[in-house]
Amino acid sequence: MNTDKFSTQLSEAVAGRLTQALKAVARDEQVPPERLRELVASGRAIIPANVNHTALNPIGIGSDLRTKVNANIGNSSVSSNLNEELSKLEIAGKYGADTVMDLSTGEALKEIRSSMLESCRMPLGTVPIYEAACQVDNTTDITADLLLQIVEEQARQGVDYMTIHAGILLEHLPLTEKRKLGIVSRGGALLARWMQHHGQENPFYTHFSDLLQICRRHDVTLSLGDGLRPGCLADSSDEAQFAELEALGKMVTECRKAEVQCMVEGPGHIPLNEIRMNMEQEEKICNGAPFYVLGPVVSDCAPGYDHITGAIGGALGAFYGAAMLCYVTPKEHLGLPNEADVREGLTAFRLAAHSADVARGISGAQERDDRISEARSNFDWETQFRFALDPDKARELRQEALDESAHEPTGEEGTQNDNDEENQDYCTMCGPKFCPMRTPKK
Amino acid sequence: MNTDKFSTQLSEAVAGRLTQALKAVARDEQVPPERLRELVASGRAIIPANVNHTALNPIGIGSDLRTKVNANIGNSSVSSNLNEELSKLEIAGKYGADTVMDLSTGEALKEIRSSMLESCRMPLGTVPIYEAACQVDNTTDITADLLLQIVEEQARQGVDYMTIHAGILLEHLPLTEKRKLGIVSRGGALLARWMQHHGQENPFYTHFSDLLQICRRHDVTLSLGDGLRPGCLADSSDEAQFAELEALGKMVTECRKAEVQCMVEGPGHIPLNEIRMNMEQEEKICNGAPFYVLGPVVSDCAPGYDHITGAIGGALGAFYGAAMLCYVTPKEHLGLPNEADVREGLTAFRLAAHSADVARGISGAQERDDRISEARSNFDWETQFRFALDPDKARELRQEALDESAHEPTGEEGTQNDNDEENQDYCTMCGPKFCPMRTPKK
Repeated sequence: MNTDKFSTQLSEAVAGRLTQALKAVARDEQVPPERLRELVASGRAIIPANVNHTALNPIGIGSDLRTKVNANIGNSSVSSNLNEELSKLEIAGKYGADTVMDLSTGEALKEIRSSMLESCRMPLGTVPIYEAACQVDNTTDITADLLLQIVEEQARQGVDYMTIHAGILLEHLPLTEKRKLGIVSRGGALLARWMQHHGQENPFYTHFSDLLQICRRHDVTLSLGDGLRPGCLADSSDEAQFAELEALGKMVTECRKAEVQCMVEGPGHIPLNEIRMNMEQEEKICNGAPFYVLGPVVSDCAPGYDHITGAIGGALGAFYGAAMLCYVTPKEHLGLPNEADVREGLTAFRLAAHSADVARGISGAQERDDRISEARSNFDWETQFRFALDPDKARELRQEALDESAHEPTGEEGTQNDNDEENQDYCTMCGPKFCPMRTPKK
Repeated sequence: MNTDKFSTQLSEAVAGRLTQALKAVARDEQVPPERLRELVASGRAIIPANVNHTALNPIGIGSDLRTKVNANIGNSSVSSNLNEELSKLEIAGKYGADTVMDLSTGEALKEIRSSMLESCRMPLGTVPIYEAACQVDNTTDITADLLLQIVEEQARQGVDYMTIHAGILLEHLPLTEKRKLGIVSRGGALLARWMQHHGQENPFYTHFSDLLQICRRHDVTLSLGDGLRPGCLADSSDEAQFAELEALGKMVTECRKAEVQCMVEGPGHIPLNEIRMNMEQEEKICNGAPFYVLGPVVSDCAPGYDHITGAIGGALGAFYGAAMLCYVTPKEHLGLPNEADVREGLTAFRLAAHSADVARGISGAQERDDRISEARSNFDWETQFRFALDPDKARELRQEALDESAHEPTGEEGTQNDNDEENQDYCTMCGPKFCPMRTPKK
């Protein structure tokens, strides 16, 4: 089938044309449109925008652009339902996710996805093999045809980007045997099992050009999945991980030839000292394709706090070149995130991304910090809250502290009432006498 | 007064003797005692251990040792009381603080401190100028004699280390005028105001040798405070900050001559890209004295989440050489931390410190991660919880996820009961069919 008549953001950029989406992204990012066109044409930036996703407000991911944050939502076979997932989608939007992935593997997959797409202004991603696995009794019954059929259906529905684990190959499987945790990617594990059972190569690999045709028709962006990402520090940066990355690098070239946009997914569990090397290797091996990393988490021993281990790794990853961070929530390694987890994970990662953007000198990034700092200096609490990444949380915590102080017998007069002008110009950390910012002014 | 007859950890190390405290620290840290003695003798490591603090379990801070975490507790004039502070001390111990600072500035200062010292096995630090400020109506009424008297009293009580802002000088004050946030250190602001009011030099600077005599007598460690640390990204790494650091570098030399142990305090608010430079400059200017940093926080725009902005900066700071991290809690910039904040701030910073230790290859650090990873691979939840930095939180979140899944109409059979053997080997994130770690085994 000749797909040349279908245009993609990439084919338009290569042809030297500025799409509406590209102009909108350039405006948002304060980047000259012609510069952005060059980045998209070279594959160093992407604009995931399925032609069928009518509610979309397009964004760009890649070189010279703000670091993006993805929130994974979606149910599992044992937890959550449509309403809860729509509510998580709303929270993801409210707390500033740039993209969302619907990773549902439970009931009512199609309905959840189509309901999400109706209202979702963010690019929406999926992992099509999850739906394939849901449709069969035994996951080894999955066929290449089924996978392509599901990709096509999801593309028609309007999914903007899809994680396809096409780089995990038969020859890589022995490399995972020496690992402490083997394969921890759901898609990767399903495909490994399929390959072992059938003694055949990964169907996404053998049918990659068919896949590209579907993506080209609907301008679906490929997110080249890392089925062999390490699942613990002991397995980080190993042979299996980099063998797959080499394969993904070749697929990047295929995608660009087909004028299908792509990004590359990355780890995972990586100690602090290996993050820079990982970012630089991807850039080199994958020819500058945007790197979309999961965390990375920099320690294995903080279950319940993995949004923080992930934010540490994510900030450093973005500083050294990752284009998008997939958030990790406090529930990671423990269970399916609920709405509160989505909010916490997202805010932790937005601040990681923002910290990296400030450090990279991204245009306009530090302005937000400066506005808050000025508000702090003026004891202008409302402005401080307004520019906070999570205004509700900041407001809550200040109120909690004021309430606690109001119950103290040692409390100074009038501390009960935050509206009292006398109480606006300090906080309960220092109190008025010790407030350093107040001292020099009085 | 001749203080030579009083020995300190430093004087003993210089004399080539191994103290009991040093031997204990060497054992804990898996460092050869002779190597540790060299580090202490050169001032690159310290063992804060006031001779009057009988409950102390000594620890080391500095080169080649695990990164330490300090928890600030203490009341303010408008919030908290003795019982709450003792309860925070207990929580700090439970969640693994290496040292605590009692920063009380409210009622019953002395009582709070002596109660804390009675039971506190961690080195305890204070900021003596806070007590001086509490004793006068107007903080400009503070005198050098009052400051020395309070330092002496606290030394007799058993305080192991004291923050003394001796490096903020008259000549530095004009440098802070161009700042967005001026001076944000409480001690620094009090002293700046005092110097401006009296037109005289910092009393801690003019009486530094008297101070050293007191410290020598009780083996109090000096924590050379950074009264001019930046209070926002816009002020980071500026002239004022580095002018003070130069002064502190000279005081390090004075301390070592007097055989008084010391460390140097550092920022504060520093963007990601300046952290490495800040660590390297301190090492150089202060001749390898242990660097004790506050965070650093890498963004100003996340009030309510500053334990995370601080953990990001702290992990990087420790990786590049900081010896101890002062935690930041979610309440930073908003109010006085309560018990829940102490727990969250502390855990965030312990994981930052641990992540850095793994990356620095500190002996034994990664073992903990490996134990958890093996437990994960075996679905051995109890071992996973046992090695977690906060076992209660990990257990809570897993239970929360199981409870939520039990309420789902789509839940698979038997998910209600975690004790059911069938439910131990997956979590609600993926459910049994999609669990990547289960797939290859079945």
